[in-house]
Amino acid sequence: MRIALDAMGGDYAPAVTVEGAVETVNESEDIEIALVGDEPSIKRELSGKRYPPTRLQIRHASQVVGMDEPAMAAIRKKKDSSIKRAIELVKNREADAVVSAGHSGVAMAMALFMLGASEGVHRPAIATLMPTIRGPFVLIDAGANVDCDPENLLQFALMGNAYCKTMFDNPEPKIALLSIGEEDTKGNLLTKEAFKLLKEAGIRFIGNIEGKDIFMGHADVVVCDGFIGNIVLKTSEGLAEVILKMLKREIADVTTGRIGYLLMKPALRNFRKKTDYAEYGGAPLLGINGTCIISHGRSSAKAMRNAIKVAAEFSRKKVYEIITEEIKSGGKSAKG
Amino acid sequence: MRIALDAMGGDYAPAVTVEGAVETVNESEDIEIALVGDEPSIKRELSGKRYPPTRLQIRHASQVVGMDEPAMAAIRKKKDSSIKRAIELVKNREADAVVSAGHSGVAMAMALFMLGASEGVHRPAIATLMPTIRGPFVLIDAGANVDCDPENLLQFALMGNAYCKTMFDNPEPKIALLSIGEEDTKGNLLTKEAFKLLKEAGIRFIGNIEGKDIFMGHADVVVCDGFIGNIVLKTSEGLAEVILKMLKREIADVTTGRIGYLLMKPALRNFRKKTDYAEYGGAPLLGINGTCIISHGRSSAKAMRNAIKVAAEFSRKKVYEIITEEIKSGGKSAKG
Repeated sequence: MRIALDAMGGDYAPAVTVEGAVETVNESEDIEIALVGDEPSIKRELSGKRYPPTRLQIRHASQVVGMDEPAMAAIRKKKDSSIKRAIELVKNREADAVVSAGHSGVAMAMALFMLGASEGVHRPAIATLMPTIRGPFVLIDAGANVDCDPENLLQFALMGNAYCKTMFDNPEPKIALLSIGEEDTKGNLLTKEAFKLLKEAGIRFIGNIEGKDIFMGHADVVVCDGFIGNIVLKTSEGLAEVILKMLKREIADVTTGRIGYLLMKPALRNFRKKTDYAEYGGAPLLGINGTCIISHGRSSAKAMRNAIKVAAEFSRKKVYEIITEEIKSGGKSAKG
Repeated sequence: MRIALDAMGGDYAPAVTVEGAVETVNESEDIEIALVGDEPSIKRELSGKRYPPTRLQIRHASQVVGMDEPAMAAIRKKKDSSIKRAIELVKNREADAVVSAGHSGVAMAMALFMLGASEGVHRPAIATLMPTIRGPFVLIDAGANVDCDPENLLQFALMGNAYCKTMFDNPEPKIALLSIGEEDTKGNLLTKEAFKLLKEAGIRFIGNIEGKDIFMGHADVVVCDGFIGNIVLKTSEGLAEVILKMLKREIADVTTGRIGYLLMKPALRNFRKKTDYAEYGGAPLLGINGTCIISHGRSSAKAMRNAIKVAAEFSRKKVYEIITEEIKSGGKSAKG
C-alpha cells in the first residue's frame, strides 16, 4: 500500500506531515509513503528521525498552494505544486491513495480533474465524520458542491450508503435527509424533491432529520447540499470550542470551580478525545476514480497519521469501486 | 401596554403561560395581559394565585392548535383557536402585541395573514437571538422562509439592522452574511448575489461570516435564508445539549470527576444561564404590521415572562414602524 502525502499542505506543514508519516511507517509495515513537496524542507524535518528509508521517500515539488489562495489561480498557475504532484502519483499508479491537509478546494478540484469522476457520478462529494452521543455519523456533502439538484442529493445518499457499508461494516446504514421538520412536506424546494427520490432508492431511508437530532445518533448518514453541510460542520466546530471556552471562563470565576476543574480534567480529556476530529483523520472525496483524503487544515501529527490509515483502508477495501457499483444499481445491488 | 397571550400555546401550556402572565402583571405595573384560550382550563391554573384582576383577563377561545398539526389544515379549520383569537386582538387594536409559544408555523402564517406585511416588505422573517462568547447576536431568518431570493436576504439585513438599532441601542450594528468563506467569491448562487446587494445597502456590512465564527461575537446580525437559519439554530441547540450530556457521562465515569462536578456546579449554572434561550424570551416576526413574538415550544414560565417583556418593549419602541422606514430608505435614512 503506497500513500502519496502532500507534505506541504496544512497550517503546520511540513513539521506535522513529516512527523505523521514517520510515525505511520514505524507502526505499519504494509504502508509506504511518498512525501511530496520541497525536498530541503522535508529533509530538515526528517533529520534525526528514525524510520525505514525504503518505505519513506521524498518526491520533490517546487511550489506550495497557500491556504488562502484563490483556488482557480492556484490551479492554473502552480503546475509544480505539492498537492498536484501528489495526486499525479495516484493518476500514474505510483501511489494507491493521496492525503492532503492543504487548500481543500484546490485538492478537491485537482483530484476530480486529474482522476476523473466515477462512472455515473455527476458530482463527487466530501463525506465527513461527526461525533454523536453514540458514535460518529457521516455528513455528506460537507462542502464540495454549494449548489445542488435533487439528483445530486440522491447520489450523495448512495455514495454515503456504500461508504458506510464498506468502511464501517454496517450492513444497512440508516440514511436521513437534513431538513427543518420530520414530515416529508417539510423542507425547501430542493429537499422536498430529494425526499421523493430517496424514498424510491434501494437504501434504508429513515426520512428527514432536524438539526437538533443529528447528534443523537439516529442516522448513520446525513445527506445535504455542500453549502449547508459546510455551515453545519463549521458551526458545530465553532460552537463546541466556544462552549468549552465559556465553561473554562465560568470555572475560573468560581473558586470551588477551579478545584473542580482539576478533578474533572480526566473526564474533559476523554470528552475531547471522543469529539476530536483528529481521531477521524480526514474526509474522503467520494465519487472519483481513486482515493483522496482531505484533512483538516489544522491537522496535528496524530490527525495526519489517522488520515494516512484511513486512506490505506479506503484503498484496500476498494471503496471507490463499490461506490461506482452503488451508483449504477441505485443502491439495489449492493444492499445487505 | 396590553399583551395578548396565547395561553394554550407550548408544550407546558396553560400551566406555564398562566404562571408567566401572573408573575409579569405582579412585577410590571404598566402591563395588562389578555389570556386567550380555554376559559375553564385557564381559571383552574389561576385559582389560588394572587394578581391584580384588572390587569389580567381571560378571553375564551374554544380550540387549540396542536404542536404537530399540519399548519394549513389548522389555519383553515380552527376558526376559534387561541392563537387566532390572540392575533385578532392586535388586529382589532384591543392589544398592542401578541405572544405565542404554540405552533410557530401557524402563528407566523396567521400573523402575516391577519396583520399584513409592512409596506415594502416581501417576506417577514424571524429574528432569533443566539449566544456568543461576548453577547447575543441576531440570526435572521431563523425559519420563516425556506426558499429565498437575494432581495429577500437584503430585506432581512435591513430589518435585522433596524431591530438591533432600536431594541439594543446599537447605533451601527455589524451585519454579516452567513456563508462558507470570508471572500465575496465564496458562497452559493443565492449568497453571492445577496453579497452584492448588501455591499450597496446603507448598512455596516462586514462581509461573509463562516459557521465557525458566528459564536465569536464578531457580527451583531447574521443574515441567511430561513432553511439554513433553522438548521443552524436547531443544530446549535442539539449540540449544546449533547456536549453537556457527554461531559456529564464522562464525569460520572471518573471518581475524581464526580467530586469535581459538584465543585463546578455553580460555574455550570452560570454557563447555562448565559446560554439559556429562556433568558431571551422569544423571537419577533419582523416585517409585519404589529408586534408578534414567537416563543420556544418548550418555554418555561420564566421564558414566557421574558417573552411578554420583549413584546412590550418591542411595541413601546415601535420597532415595526422603524422597520418600515428602514425598508423604504434601504437602510440610509435610519442610519446612525
